[in-house]
Amino acid sequence: MADINSKLEIGVTTGPIRGSKKIYVPAQSNPSIKVAMREIHLEPTSGEPPVRVYDTSGPYTDPDAAIDISAGLPALRREWQLSRGDVEEYEPREVKPEDNGQLGPDRSGGVPPFPTALRRPLRAKAGKNISQMHYAKQGIITPEMEYVAERENLGRARLAEYNRSGESFGAAIPDYVTPEFVRDEVARGRAIIPSNVNHPESEPMAIGRNFLVKINANIGNSAVASDVASEVDKMVWSIRWGADTVMDLSTGRNIHDTREWIIRNSPVPIGTVPIYQALEKVGGIAEDLTWDIFRDTLIEQAEQGVDYFTIHAGVRLPYIPLAAKRMTGIVSRGGSIMAKWCLAHHKESFLYEHFDEITEIMKAYDIAYSLGDGLRPGSIYDANDEAQFAELYTLGELTKKAWEQDVQVMIEGPGHVPMHKIKENMEKQLESCGEAPFYTLGPLTTDIAPGYDHITSGIGAAQIGWYGTAMLCYVTPKEHLGLPDRDDVKVGVVTYKLAAHAADLAKGHPAAQVRDDALSKARFEFRWRDQFNLSLDPDTAEQYHDQTLPAEGAKTAHFCSMCGPKFCSMKISQEVRDFAAKQNQPVETFVAAEEAEKGMEEMSKVYKEKGNELYLPAED
Amino acid sequence: MADINSKLEIGVTTGPIRGSKKIYVPAQSNPSIKVAMREIHLEPTSGEPPVRVYDTSGPYTDPDAAIDISAGLPALRREWQLSRGDVEEYEPREVKPEDNGQLGPDRSGGVPPFPTALRRPLRAKAGKNISQMHYAKQGIITPEMEYVAERENLGRARLAEYNRSGESFGAAIPDYVTPEFVRDEVARGRAIIPSNVNHPESEPMAIGRNFLVKINANIGNSAVASDVASEVDKMVWSIRWGADTVMDLSTGRNIHDTREWIIRNSPVPIGTVPIYQALEKVGGIAEDLTWDIFRDTLIEQAEQGVDYFTIHAGVRLPYIPLAAKRMTGIVSRGGSIMAKWCLAHHKESFLYEHFDEITEIMKAYDIAYSLGDGLRPGSIYDANDEAQFAELYTLGELTKKAWEQDVQVMIEGPGHVPMHKIKENMEKQLESCGEAPFYTLGPLTTDIAPGYDHITSGIGAAQIGWYGTAMLCYVTPKEHLGLPDRDDVKVGVVTYKLAAHAADLAKGHPAAQVRDDALSKARFEFRWRDQFNLSLDPDTAEQYHDQTLPAEGAKTAHFCSMCGPKFCSMKISQEVRDFAAKQNQPVETFVAAEEAEKGMEEMSKVYKEKGNELYLPAED
Repeated sequence: MADINSKLEIGVTTGPIRGSKKIYVPAQSNPSIKVAMREIHLEPTSGEPPVRVYDTSGPYTDPDAAIDISAGLPALRREWQLSRGDVEEYEPREVKPEDNGQLGPDRSGGVPPFPTALRRPLRAKAGKNISQMHYAKQGIITPEMEYVAERENLGRARLAEYNRSGESFGAAIPDYVTPEFVRDEVARGRAIIPSNVNHPESEPMAIGRNFLVKINANIGNSAVASDVASEVDKMVWSIRWGADTVMDLSTGRNIHDTREWIIRNSPVPIGTVPIYQALEKVGGIAEDLTWDIFRDTLIEQAEQGVDYFTIHAGVRLPYIPLAAKRMTGIVSRGGSIMAKWCLAHHKESFLYEHFDEITEIMKAYDIAYSLGDGLRPGSIYDANDEAQFAELYTLGELTKKAWEQDVQVMIEGPGHVPMHKIKENMEKQLESCGEAPFYTLGPLTTDIAPGYDHITSGIGAAQIGWYGTAMLCYVTPKEHLGLPDRDDVKVGVVTYKLAAHAADLAKGHPAAQVRDDALSKARFEFRWRDQFNLSLDPDTAEQYHDQTLPAEGAKTAHFCSMCGPKFCSMKISQEVRDFAAKQNQPVETFVAAEEAEKGMEEMSKVYKEKGNELYLPAED
Repeated sequence: MADINSKLEIGVTTGPIRGSKKIYVPAQSNPSIKVAMREIHLEPTSGEPPVRVYDTSGPYTDPDAAIDISAGLPALRREWQLSRGDVEEYEPREVKPEDNGQLGPDRSGGVPPFPTALRRPLRAKAGKNISQMHYAKQGIITPEMEYVAERENLGRARLAEYNRSGESFGAAIPDYVTPEFVRDEVARGRAIIPSNVNHPESEPMAIGRNFLVKINANIGNSAVASDVASEVDKMVWSIRWGADTVMDLSTGRNIHDTREWIIRNSPVPIGTVPIYQALEKVGGIAEDLTWDIFRDTLIEQAEQGVDYFTIHAGVRLPYIPLAAKRMTGIVSRGGSIMAKWCLAHHKESFLYEHFDEITEIMKAYDIAYSLGDGLRPGSIYDANDEAQFAELYTLGELTKKAWEQDVQVMIEGPGHVPMHKIKENMEKQLESCGEAPFYTLGPLTTDIAPGYDHITSGIGAAQIGWYGTAMLCYVTPKEHLGLPDRDDVKVGVVTYKLAAHAADLAKGHPAAQVRDDALSKARFEFRWRDQFNLSLDPDTAEQYHDQTLPAEGAKTAHFCSMCGPKFCSMKISQEVRDFAAKQNQPVETFVAAEEAEKGMEEMSKVYKEKGNELYLPAED
């Protein structure tokens, strides 16, 4: 397992994922755009082609890439941005002591400022709108859209081999993704490409129900624990295993600098909840929050390159009393901050009141909204209640307001929901939010398994992903109990990756089943290494295998520890197949059971004549 | 964690589950029947009643029980059996060398015979039928049925507090379970109570779609690894965490003695796949199997007390060629044994041909059928194919034949099935098998996550449980890779327990939500210990909490590691509620958002006058 433990001095994991090779595929529409993918090579004896899989890991898994965390990643999108002629560099807002939690100008929190953070940010020129949605509505196909199209097409070249099956509940997944399809989806608000102009390091990706289901991993300092080095490491670690976006939910001190280190080194979009930092700036007293402080925080984060903001603008004053009837009240941190503010001032939320001004800022940087569900249920008991849906309808109203300015939007969703109430969430969201992408946390399908909430929620996530949710926010085993460590992050990511994939399969996504089939075939043919390498977590798969059969020879053995060498159902299946083949009868002719029965007598004779080892005369 | 590590010399875990007390509740219909349950006591300050939960752990969690593995458990049902006057003791079949894998009379495999195994077994007197289904059809309510009724009613005394919600897809779950309801369900074949007359140690339990969803744990030696001591330990360990039945899937040597140790110490029904042992008796050569050897094995296991037999009688000769078209052929071990036999002899399966004779044996001991799905799909690619459904229809035909002799039946199901194809499995099973209980393995909803197949299958299990499956066979993280150890067994059991519970919630089972609500309330009120104790795995929950906040004080702290002490959304919710309470306004009057808005101005004034700490004058 040398590959996963080889770390740079500053402690991130690099090197290829076991059995895989990083490749860069030129986009069919524009070969100058090189799209990062991962290719899993199978045993040469198998005669099977390599399997291409979606890759979120960035340059960290490329052995030829020079990784320097203090320098950050290359600015992949910088030229595309400048070539459009609608942005300008400008003098950034000065970093203030309160940005890092009142630590003073020396920032004495153990977190140094990012070395090259003095660059001048970009923003839209006056009167311009640089959102991907704006371009899309103008009919412009951007390089970002071309990148996304190529990226989403994994395996579709093999489409002819598959019959599409699935139930997509009204989604419109195409056989093949073209740049024009991406443009159209973004234009109509059904997909977003989060891409802050100040995060040129990010590799374009789309979130929308007609694309592969995505997953998000949350990381971040808290006032109680964590440090910046481990947060950067967790970001790199989470994208290694498949996180499509990462949210930095840091609270406490060093928020600004922690975020800068994360963004500069992240090839995936970064989301934040700006109200968290704003709250730190007023010493944790929600009532002291003001629109000016919040606005300034948005600018600060916009200049750093945050790709999407969770904005809890749907927590309106009149909805707050609805939460008093609940078993678990308001469990969203952002939601409760706003509730406390509204209650204390008896005023409508400043986020709701200033929504159009927030949108103005978003469009100047191309930041996407992630409209927060501040009133999501925190227990099975509270699922699908009035408070939750009152807020959802307001989010729908705000979606339309954001779209008026061509700003990209997704909608956050619950939370804790028993299985029979999940579909209603999806249906109401599609209806009230005009098919804007849904981005849900789980949902957890029961409350009785703390320590296993990655699973209680993975069950809900797979289902809501199938119904149409575009991105699933992971839950780790530590949910409700503590802060996730590196191992928890991996378990959370892999769990959500498999849930998202199960959803893609059920939706009938034509690119999805390629990998299942390749792994199943490897399993049937006892290609153990291929089976490990094709799995979401090759290291764990191999480790589990070796716990029972550690010998190197067992990796090429045509048996496993379940039945042992003497008897194996896979071997018998192969014998059944060989039996058919020996008669020069193609397997396809073994169609109906009735016909097969008729032919069996004759086949048996042939079998006997050929002296197959299987044969023994009937006994009684 | 002293409780889980305190082992007897022979190595099983005893002692109460953390925070719980074993209780014995007299059945309402017959107080002489004492039904084992577990009661979770909450902090006295909470004012909350104890929460009763279903308990599968047997005497092992009762500190007053004397556990002696060499003596076995008390024969709880012995008096009930004898009092019916329809059984006789007789001289058992002699244990033969081949029963333990040709080890010779000294059984030199390191496994001693069970000390008291020389007892005389029971069977039905000539002409009698002692199956629970037979009694049920005669209108007789047995003590077993009374036990089941009481056992299933957990929490239903609190029913009045709940509005039943859920979608049960045609199930008929009653508000309250009466012995008569149990009898009726068993009589019509919609539920079974596996209860071999020679396993009087078992505590009666029901498997049926109108009862709580059950789970099964598989254990067993293989030819490659494991030993009897660890298998007995795994059995006790799996029922501690919630396994409702246990299947002993041992292969290799010592099968007879291993099973005897397991059954004599098991308070839950034990299932087996008799063909596994029969195959060992013929040296692993499937073609050498005969009806006589198989029949003798059934008698052997019947006398030991196996409660249900997996019989792969649906793998008929004409269906075998259908498996040749598959990506992964036949993956059921029992299915492939029978396929090889049929193919080699070119004869119809002896299990199918002798089905009525098998049923004769089953009814003399009250063994239930678990009709095996020998042609279940082994990959996403093969799901819901002709071979699978051809077999299912045959299982339906066999169900009716078994019912003609009043023998209890459940039907085994897949396997590997993508989400959109799961419901079809349930619907076809209900239709073709006359609502006999469905008992499924997972299904796994994707093939790309070996090492995480407890989760890929937990997703499918929760769904098929919701749709109507009565028992879910667990899958451990080692599935497809190796043999589960003790930790894997626990993870598998807890995962399936939460999946079964999620299904109960979604079906609207009135006893299900009590525990979710109690835990949610404890969470909201920062009763950390109650939160741990109410969870499916209190040890892991506490351990995870302590990794971030190990101090003893943190267990009573009104904050957690996610937000820290300064800001907490739960606290704010409490403030919202207090705010309402201070006006002497019941929470229930906070109904509609519009009304709430009107009242808000006034409430704010009251709030201000009372000088609540939350309040600060508006700023701008």
